[in-house]
Amino acid sequence: MIYIQRKERFSAAHQLYNPQWDEAKNDEVFGKCANKNFHGHNFTLTVTVKGEINPDTGFVMNLVDLKHIIKEHIIEAVDHKNLNHDVPFMKGKFTSTEVLAMEFWKILQPLVRDFGAHMHCVRLDETENNSVEYYGD
Amino acid sequence: MIYIQRKERFSAAHQLYNPQWDEAKNDEVFGKCANKNFHGHNFTLTVTVKGEINPDTGFVMNLVDLKHIIKEHIIEAVDHKNLNHDVPFMKGKFTSTEVLAMEFWKILQPLVRDFGAHMHCVRLDETENNSVEYYGD
Amino acid sequence: MIYIQRKERFSAAHQLYNPQWDEAKNDEVFGKCANKNFHGHNFTLTVTVKGEINPDTGFVMNLVDLKHIIKEHIIEAVDHKNLNHDVPFMKGKFTSTEVLAMEFWKILQPLVRDFGAHMHCVRLDETENNSVEYYGD
Amino acid sequence: MIYIQRKERFSAAHQLYNPQWDEAKNDEVFGKCANKNFHGHNFTLTVTVKGEINPDTGFVMNLVDLKHIIKEHIIEAVDHKNLNHDVPFMKGKFTSTEVLAMEFWKILQPLVRDFGAHMHCVRLDETENNSVEYYGD
Amino acid sequence: MIYIQRKERFSAAHQLYNPQWDEAKNDEVFGKCANKNFHGHNFTLTVTVKGEINPDTGFVMNLVDLKHIIKEHIIEAVDHKNLNHDVPFMKGKFTSTEVLAMEFWKILQPLVRDFGAHMHCVRLDETENNSVEYYGD
Amino acid sequence: MIYIQRKERFSAAHQLYNPQWDEAKNDEVFGKCANKNFHGHNFTLTVTVKGEINPDTGFVMNLVDLKHIIKEHIIEAVDHKNLNHDVPFMKGKFTSTEVLAMEFWKILQPLVRDFGAHMHCVRLDETENNSVEYYGD
Repeated sequence: MIYIQRKERFSAAHQLYNPQWDEAKNDEVFGKCANKNFHGHNFTLTVTVKGEINPDTGFVMNLVDLKHIIKEHIIEAVDHKNLNHDVPFMKGKFTSTEVLAMEFWKILQPLVRDFGAHMHCVRLDETENNSVEYYGD
Repeated sequence: MIYIQRKERFSAAHQLYNPQWDEAKNDEVFGKCANKNFHGHNFTLTVTVKGEINPDTGFVMNLVDLKHIIKEHIIEAVDHKNLNHDVPFMKGKFTSTEVLAMEFWKILQPLVRDFGAHMHCVRLDETENNSVEYYGD
Repeated sequence: MIYIQRKERFSAAHQLYNPQWDEAKNDEVFGKCANKNFHGHNFTLTVTVKGEINPDTGFVMNLVDLKHIIKEHIIEAVDHKNLNHDVPFMKGKFTSTEVLAMEFWKILQPLVRDFGAHMHCVRLDETENNSVEYYGD
Repeated sequence: MIYIQRKERFSAAHQLYNPQWDEAKNDEVFGKCANKNFHGHNFTLTVTVKGEINPDTGFVMNLVDLKHIIKEHIIEAVDHKNLNHDVPFMKGKFTSTEVLAMEFWKILQPLVRDFGAHMHCVRLDETENNSVEYYGD
Repeated sequence: MIYIQRKERFSAAHQLYNPQWDEAKNDEVFGKCANKNFHGHNFTLTVTVKGEINPDTGFVMNLVDLKHIIKEHIIEAVDHKNLNHDVPFMKGKFTSTEVLAMEFWKILQPLVRDFGAHMHCVRLDETENNSVEYYGD
Repeated sequence: MIYIQRKERFSAAHQLYNPQWDEAKNDEVFGKCANKNFHGHNFTLTVTVKGEINPDTGFVMNLVDLKHIIKEHIIEAVDHKNLNHDVPFMKGKFTSTEVLAMEFWKILQPLVRDFGAHMHCVRLDETENNSVEYYGD
């Protein structure tokens, strides 16, 4: 078993808030992240895939294929978008890095399996100091 | 003459568009940056100040003072904000990195002069690949 | 289960030596790190916490809270300090990154638990090439 | 148990191809990596070693020793080399990062054991976006 | 006058040698860079362009256009190539970073001028420690 | 004229204080940098040299030579040292980055000239946010 990683980037706006709370409660919990005019980040997405080495290629899977999967199914949907309003799979969900990472995992898992590999980790860096890692259930 | 630099960061949303153009023209010129629901970035602001070394301190000016000036007068105003809607000094202006850098310069120049130093450069990195530098007129 | 990370930095002086050895033995084992006038580093501390996502916030715990815990209980104690002389919880201990990481874990574990999360890893980078990770017992 | 890491770098040329395939098939599978005149990278090698803390030093093992092992046994063999032609332990093997990481592990494992520690991970970054991790069998 | 920068990357093989010298002299001057089987790097190319701000866009020139120019005219020609054998504009020239930067400048200068801007600097990083900057004649 | 850069690193302890001031005044001006037990940093030193390209090598000067000059004459003197007590050329001087950069310039200038090149800039990064640049008189 060996692990390969591909890193991609996207820039997006978002707002953290709970629609069941009033503005004061949202401000108290989410602070400046609750700004109703949105703020934004350069996000870095790192996808780790695991599998056996293919004896014909020396690869677990071709990182060019992994790059294309991530770009087509994730980056296209989120880059230069508003995560609260423009992204179908985030509708009605918190746009925290935790939830984003879990939603990205759900999208990527079957696609990676089609290449004979298995998802290991979705990592999402929101700033150079804040990040999240999800390894599936 | 010696040059000292301080780097600070902020995360903000913005939209690039010309209000005198229709949506099609804005999309043509600004592409995905014209998204009307905004997108965002982690911006890195690097301020370079020049001056003589103070013989009592070995400093051009104390970088702690430069940090406080930048934080109080720039970062407070733009961090976790929408650059098109929440920032008084950007009202009615393009929120391109070029214009942001020039507006930051105007704010910082008199404040730095009060510490016996002179502005040399405002650098603003919008992504790890795109940046701008302004050295004054 | 999902993992969130917060990175903080501190700058400190230290010396590696075993007080039960003479200077020659210390120099042999610790090399230039045994310099009795001290040397120093910019340390990067990365704390990883794990837990379930809170359905009211989309967070494992608020990274702002994790930041405050780390700053108040670790960074305050070690930043711009001499790790051999100025830090109560390091008294009589080696100031290697291994021991530092383990001591930081002991301090952070109960504090993180108060926020309903669990410590997963303390990582400490001493230089861009040397680092340590501790995952508890 | 605690984990320590040492990062080293090397620059090398390589070509990805399967000698049992014709040029068209190699181009189809390996794309521009199949260029028969070679291409190259700055590789970053990160070796993680685990063990107990030595009560006489506060170290798992001295990172200076780990640095010397990596430099003498890996970097000397691969830096400024052609991985397909100049490196004895890669003869007849794919020079993918996956295979390189596994071969580096085989070389390092007994050497690290001589210092009372155990190999945990070999990580190899080929570009800032592509990397591999191997944790042994 | 304001300066904007775009960073692109490429991976290539090369060899440093003077064909008028014998192998011993090449080894003496170029050391391990003279390896006749080539070595390689991940190069980072940073292009700085200067100009006035366009009052209709807030841009000196659109960085998307600068990106396309660099990708089409430079990166296409050098990425995953052997700089000594595969690149028409480097034929018969040293493939040092100095010469590469000057050749890149010659190609980019007229293309940037077509967008109403002016070349300011070509920077080429060969490793994280070695780089070159060229500002024209 | 073309510019080449070499980056080297060192780790050192220091204290900022003016011996003609009492402790209260030192604390007021230098803050936590005045800690009498010292603190420390990983410093990054970037030396930029300018010159014409040598037609026999394609180099301004060999970066391997520049590396050796910097390592032998600067890094040897300051790495894992106390800048206030262990470094002959800093005796009686402030150990601010400004003064360090100017002293490094004085040492490097004649050495670089012996290789037919000219000093352009000494840059010293003390943390990832604070740095200084000196271009000579």
